Amino acid sequence: MATTVEEQASLVRKLKEDPNFGPSHADTKAAIVSLKALKLANAPAGPPAKQKFSLKVPKGTKDWSDKDMILREKIFNTITRVFKSHGGVTIDTPVFELREILAGKYGEDSKLIYDLKDQGGEICSLRYDLTVPFARWLAMNTNIEKIKRYHIAKVYRRDQPAMTKGRMREFYQCDFDVAGQYDSMVPDAEVLRILVEILNALEIKDFTIKLNHRKILDGIFEICGVPEDKIRTISSAVDKLDKSPWSEVRKEMIEEKQLEPAVADKIGEYVVLNGDETLLSKLQGDDKLSSNKRAAEGMSDMATLFTYLRALDVLPRIKFDLSLARGLDYYTGLIYEAVTPLSSGKVLQTNETKKQVDADADRSEDDSVGVGSIAAGGRYDNLVGMFTGKKTGIPCVGISIGVERVFSLLKARETAARNNETEVFVMAIGKTGLLEDRMRVCTELWAAGIKTEFLYKKKPNLRQQFDAAEKGGVPVGVILGEQEIQDGTVKIKPLGTGESNEGETVKRSEMVGKIRQLLTSLDG
Amino acid sequence: MATTVEEQASLVRKLKEDPNFGPSHADTKAAIVSLKALKLANAPAGPPAKQKFSLKVPKGTKDWSDKDMILREKIFNTITRVFKSHGGVTIDTPVFELREILAGKYGEDSKLIYDLKDQGGEICSLRYDLTVPFARWLAMNTNIEKIKRYHIAKVYRRDQPAMTKGRMREFYQCDFDVAGQYDSMVPDAEVLRILVEILNALEIKDFTIKLNHRKILDGIFEICGVPEDKIRTISSAVDKLDKSPWSEVRKEMIEEKQLEPAVADKIGEYVVLNGDETLLSKLQGDDKLSSNKRAAEGMSDMATLFTYLRALDVLPRIKFDLSLARGLDYYTGLIYEAVTPLSSGKVLQTNETKKQVDADADRSEDDSVGVGSIAAGGRYDNLVGMFTGKKTGIPCVGISIGVERVFSLLKARETAARNNETEVFVMAIGKTGLLEDRMRVCTELWAAGIKTEFLYKKKPNLRQQFDAAEKGGVPVGVILGEQEIQDGTVKIKPLGTGESNEGETVKRSEMVGKIRQLLTSLDG
Repeated sequence: MATTVEEQASLVRKLKEDPNFGPSHADTKAAIVSLKALKLANAPAGPPAKQKFSLKVPKGTKDWSDKDMILREKIFNTITRVFKSHGGVTIDTPVFELREILAGKYGEDSKLIYDLKDQGGEICSLRYDLTVPFARWLAMNTNIEKIKRYHIAKVYRRDQPAMTKGRMREFYQCDFDVAGQYDSMVPDAEVLRILVEILNALEIKDFTIKLNHRKILDGIFEICGVPEDKIRTISSAVDKLDKSPWSEVRKEMIEEKQLEPAVADKIGEYVVLNGDETLLSKLQGDDKLSSNKRAAEGMSDMATLFTYLRALDVLPRIKFDLSLARGLDYYTGLIYEAVTPLSSGKVLQTNETKKQVDADADRSEDDSVGVGSIAAGGRYDNLVGMFTGKKTGIPCVGISIGVERVFSLLKARETAARNNETEVFVMAIGKTGLLEDRMRVCTELWAAGIKTEFLYKKKPNLRQQFDAAEKGGVPVGVILGEQEIQDGTVKIKPLGTGESNEGETVKRSEMVGKIRQLLTSLDG
Repeated sequence: MATTVEEQASLVRKLKEDPNFGPSHADTKAAIVSLKALKLANAPAGPPAKQKFSLKVPKGTKDWSDKDMILREKIFNTITRVFKSHGGVTIDTPVFELREILAGKYGEDSKLIYDLKDQGGEICSLRYDLTVPFARWLAMNTNIEKIKRYHIAKVYRRDQPAMTKGRMREFYQCDFDVAGQYDSMVPDAEVLRILVEILNALEIKDFTIKLNHRKILDGIFEICGVPEDKIRTISSAVDKLDKSPWSEVRKEMIEEKQLEPAVADKIGEYVVLNGDETLLSKLQGDDKLSSNKRAAEGMSDMATLFTYLRALDVLPRIKFDLSLARGLDYYTGLIYEAVTPLSSGKVLQTNETKKQVDADADRSEDDSVGVGSIAAGGRYDNLVGMFTGKKTGIPCVGISIGVERVFSLLKARETAARNNETEVFVMAIGKTGLLEDRMRVCTELWAAGIKTEFLYKKKPNLRQQFDAAEKGGVPVGVILGEQEIQDGTVKIKPLGTGESNEGETVKRSEMVGKIRQLLTSLDG
């Protein structure tokens, strides 16, 4: 990489002169931008020259603050509590990985990965999810054969954003995964229990968990006559059934993916099926499907799972849905996603021509876009093995909760809350302002673990101080005057009560105790 | 950007053919790597071909898990508690910013910024600190005139790593900043109080907070005869005095930065000075310095500050140190950093020739590298104005705590702790394993908010279950047998006591209450 202004300028000249790299070419543009940045960075300090630049965050990202931030932290705390309640321990991995670690894990979605620029050294990309980094971590830490790990962190996807619906390019995932060799479907069932506990704790209304099994799906494709090398791509097409009608998906299978129409029609008979446990009995009665090895394994897993889901009181939320396919390559068994009535957008008319859309444009106003699934996951038994190179890696099953989408559902019914936790505001009466005395009182309160503020003004009047305290919703005031300083006392007064009393005078040595009492009584 | 394998392959061919872009050229290399990645991403799914790749994290980054993770979370919680105790509210900004937002803010360190690849669309870089994004946020949110905000998040620097000393390329910063127009030095003093409270709460031994003032420093440079356009670069040289002796720094000033030797020598007389408040009186008695406008303003600020630091009981930790300069461009007033005896490495011999070092190599074993400052900050009154374009932006002062460096100090005296919080382990006696009954008991306990685990095995023996519970340090066991199921009871037994009693039999309806009692008594 060019590191000096001169080197970069020379690179830009070369790029401009080369017929293959005209000024409209992206590489040339990037080089020019770098040159400008380098010039700026190397410019002598002092008052900055007037620059033209956009004062904004990158597309698909946003700042979080104030009450949104408090709601988001509340969501994190609820999720963390449930994760810990099931024995979860947490890990943290870097936000970027060596690019080769991510390669070949995400199927058609790989094009959405953010790459870091090659600045000399390793080639890296921002993580696309928390699952592949977890598998990489397991493969590196060979002493760990089993773990229940949770991880709450940001992931990155260069997807078309719809911000107010929680579809973003930078977003948090909250993942819980169970790694290790266990008896069939036991951890899978607990992961679904965890999901239900979290969505209940967050008071998400009317959610449903759609279940399917990759082996049943693959068995269906097999008996319908899908060639082995087309199974994953046909599976991706099926996954679009939550947004598009069957006629559209069928068209994609035949026209884009060159499937025989008769094969597509047979698939169509299966993937429209959904229901409760009884659907499983129905499928088990289908001789052709039952005699397919993969499908039979999948159906046996499902039967075991339904037994456990009953014991774990999860069954009422479950819908067995053969149209659920999940896009990612790495799933090998059970797959699931949680949806609400707001998950899917309005279905587009089948005869509507697809509009050419700007991939950077926000689609929040597009009615065909819903908030999507609010959580999703499944079993992936071979991902760790892809890193260790061993045939049998560590089998895993997990769930990922999309916090931004949950947030967009909860924000509508958010109740107003304070945005800070300050308990005491220390004020002065009189013309001198008593700044150093206020500081000394604050210092005593901080030392006692009491959350305290004061006004950053040498000589504030009492009104200003009351206003600042009440604006912040602070429950207790401590008031100082010359007389109190002389007497070694302070006045303590509950705030926001509308009462105009002067407060109670207490000795400085009793101040902390009195305030603690008052805070407890106000809490109750 | 090329998005298909064919387009990328054609780009690689062009680059290889072009004499200016031989295969050793970084752009060519990057294009070849992209081609490989595209090929991989577009490869048909199914069992992956055997790949050669390094199973590791990018240089300068690390995974966190187990007891390290618990210690780190404890540090975060302590810091957050103190931030909130002073009225702090939190915000979150994207991990990458438009590149132009970061340009021209970091002086010589700009070369350490990580850039994202241009994949079409906006040009972005990973954030280098949390201060510039905060200033950008303030500039965008014009309704906010004052705020005490804290932000705990990862930042990125392509610096030479020394992992075990907490010098990393991806690391957490914990920032507290006060923005707004206030009476002089009041928020500055509280920020220093916050720093002292945090380092005390973390039980960091023997820390010192070095203070200086940019205006005093600039005044010194001015009266010594440093040309105005060299002030920032000479300031950067002075900043190296914590690692290098004066003779080295003097050499850099004269040889690299073309300063007159006589000017350098005059600077040398000032920057070796450090001490307590009395140093300020000494400087105030220096007629030449006192008659310099900038220096006089700085000294007046310092006098005010010392008064407040006394009221806030912070003074014993303070050292006024004229050699402290801080590298970043954006500071305009008070600057400070917290150091411990382990902060600086051993000073290199002055006659030692500088070794050519590999920038990617880890320097953990290099004795000349210390853990560095564990916290640093200062006042930056013009940064927000650089974004709004207005002359008077929002003045700010803040502190940034380097958690990884704090971590490396605390890890040495870390005491063993459990790595999970599980309270109850549910087990079965007998050959049938009672898996669904165990699940039902767990479900009751989870519903009651009790952290519970069970063994993911259909028919485990009692030994396996006790081992799993005791390995995890779980304090209470709930034991089920056929008899208990029939009677509607369970056995409850404290674990890890060494006692071999069978436990207490209680009714299922009383189980939750009994366990809560037991957990409370074990806590006490």
